[in-house]
Amino acid sequence: MRQIPTIDDVVDARARLAGQAVVTPLLESAALNARVKGRVLIKAENLQRTGSFKFRGAWNCISRLTAETARGGVVAYSSGNHAQGVAAAAALMKLPALIVMPVDTPEIKKANTRSYGAEVVTYDRVRENREEIAGRIATERGAVIVPPFEHPQIIAGQGTSGLELVEQAAERGAKLDAVLAPVSGGGLIAGISLAVKARSPGTQIHSVEPEGFDDHARSLASGKRERNAKASGSICDALLSPEPGELTFAVNQSRLGAGLVVSEAEVRRAMVFAFHHLKLVIEPGGAVGLAAVLSGKIATEGRTIALIASGGNVDPALFAEILIAKD
Amino acid sequence: MRQIPTIDDVVDARARLAGQAVVTPLLESAALNARVKGRVLIKAENLQRTGSFKFRGAWNCISRLTAETARGGVVAYSSGNHAQGVAAAAALMKLPALIVMPVDTPEIKKANTRSYGAEVVTYDRVRENREEIAGRIATERGAVIVPPFEHPQIIAGQGTSGLELVEQAAERGAKLDAVLAPVSGGGLIAGISLAVKARSPGTQIHSVEPEGFDDHARSLASGKRERNAKASGSICDALLSPEPGELTFAVNQSRLGAGLVVSEAEVRRAMVFAFHHLKLVIEPGGAVGLAAVLSGKIATEGRTIALIASGGNVDPALFAEILIAKD
Repeated sequence: MRQIPTIDDVVDARARLAGQAVVTPLLESAALNARVKGRVLIKAENLQRTGSFKFRGAWNCISRLTAETARGGVVAYSSGNHAQGVAAAAALMKLPALIVMPVDTPEIKKANTRSYGAEVVTYDRVRENREEIAGRIATERGAVIVPPFEHPQIIAGQGTSGLELVEQAAERGAKLDAVLAPVSGGGLIAGISLAVKARSPGTQIHSVEPEGFDDHARSLASGKRERNAKASGSICDALLSPEPGELTFAVNQSRLGAGLVVSEAEVRRAMVFAFHHLKLVIEPGGAVGLAAVLSGKIATEGRTIALIASGGNVDPALFAEILIAKD
Repeated sequence: MRQIPTIDDVVDARARLAGQAVVTPLLESAALNARVKGRVLIKAENLQRTGSFKFRGAWNCISRLTAETARGGVVAYSSGNHAQGVAAAAALMKLPALIVMPVDTPEIKKANTRSYGAEVVTYDRVRENREEIAGRIATERGAVIVPPFEHPQIIAGQGTSGLELVEQAAERGAKLDAVLAPVSGGGLIAGISLAVKARSPGTQIHSVEPEGFDDHARSLASGKRERNAKASGSICDALLSPEPGELTFAVNQSRLGAGLVVSEAEVRRAMVFAFHHLKLVIEPGGAVGLAAVLSGKIATEGRTIALIASGGNVDPALFAEILIAKD
């Protein structure tokens, strides 16, 4: 297992991200506060470069590569936000990027990834293994693999969002009772937990997952890494990792409270609420924290809860369908 | 004519708004900058309380009312954003609010206005005069009329967005070549021009209007207040005032550059761009500045342009239709 990152790595990552990543705003809505009888602070990572927090970790990792180690560029496997984060970071470093994507990835996500100059190679989800394909290509090209979460620099990079959040909350005099973050492989919440527990030790941190993909909630309860039964079938396409990462779970196990789980209907309602009251486009996986707050999965009355709206990369047809659906 | 407000009124308004209005973020998108080969800063007033800048002026006006003058509460006429701004400000002051709205106002806008505790009275656009109705009710009740733009406190309140904009731009080392703002009666851009011309005299300020409702562009060119031929028929429902205000034009005439005009197709494309790349919900009238930038109505290459995304109150069915329309 790779080395476990620390708060120092998150602080170092922040210095590296300066001028490249967006210091995303911490937003607050009088309408939302009134609705939940508490104070909700929203870290708007959908406003991050490439439309999700993933640019943070990708840049922290890729910007440190030397000309020798990365002579063949970078390779990643992802069907979504990590692909765009890696492609954009590589383009800024003038490195070639190749992304391994499932052949059935929506054309818009392939096009977005290519728009940053990356090459896209497709594979068959059922018959082929993406890690193997990426590994073979990386070896052939002399390229570096940028994993989606199992890497200390990726975790530290994502953690910069948590560092900003704690400082932005303090600036406005808010004492954080809890921080909620969406979880897939656990890299974002691992980085956030390093930052939050170092700077605000009394703040609880909770993972939020969609029903059927609650591997972290079960793993945190059992104390060992549990797998999901299904590999697909949630509207939250960014949150489908089969199990917690080994490295991320080593960070998360001692720092997170109980995991929260939300239904698809709750996610849809949260996206519609964000449209009406926050004026934000939040993708399904990015809306689980808001869904948890709105559906009462965590106590809000008289408390201050921060949540990460982790991304906004949602297909327009799906967004439109959710907006006009009769609930 | 009422007294023309000054930068001092805007500064005073800011102190009054502190803790009630949102200091909205000034956003920047690498994707947008790359697209226009310049730097675009977006003042996200769609993230303001009630979903548009209108709360600023309403609060600046209503929070100054004394118990005697406002013993009967406040009255306003508006079919949209001003209604919500006045209703929310009155609710915070624990004053009754009555809003005169066209009988054919979409039910969702009436419901939003009522959600702040306001009473809604409807009138027939063709046969009745809303100013007369509001005036009669105000007299009967001993209530104060809060006009949408022809009032120095309203103008000064809206101008706080410009004051924040100039300071936020300076904080990030941006020298503003131009500021673009949507225009209906001209209150927002009047307040902004007071702030921007006082703090950054070399910055050009341009009104942006939808085709067919370009009364300001024509008035600025001719030097006198010109009227629109039509009273309705634009997707930009917030930008349909028939002519510049007398007071607002007195402020704007000497401070604005040439007016810009955008088509409905350009507005739709800007809203879709904002969905994909900014992850913001912007209403049609709020997207005219972005439309002007994206359609090349103003030179952007190598320049820094700030624009006001003035609101995000758009019907979900319309937003969905725009998202999925084939261009």
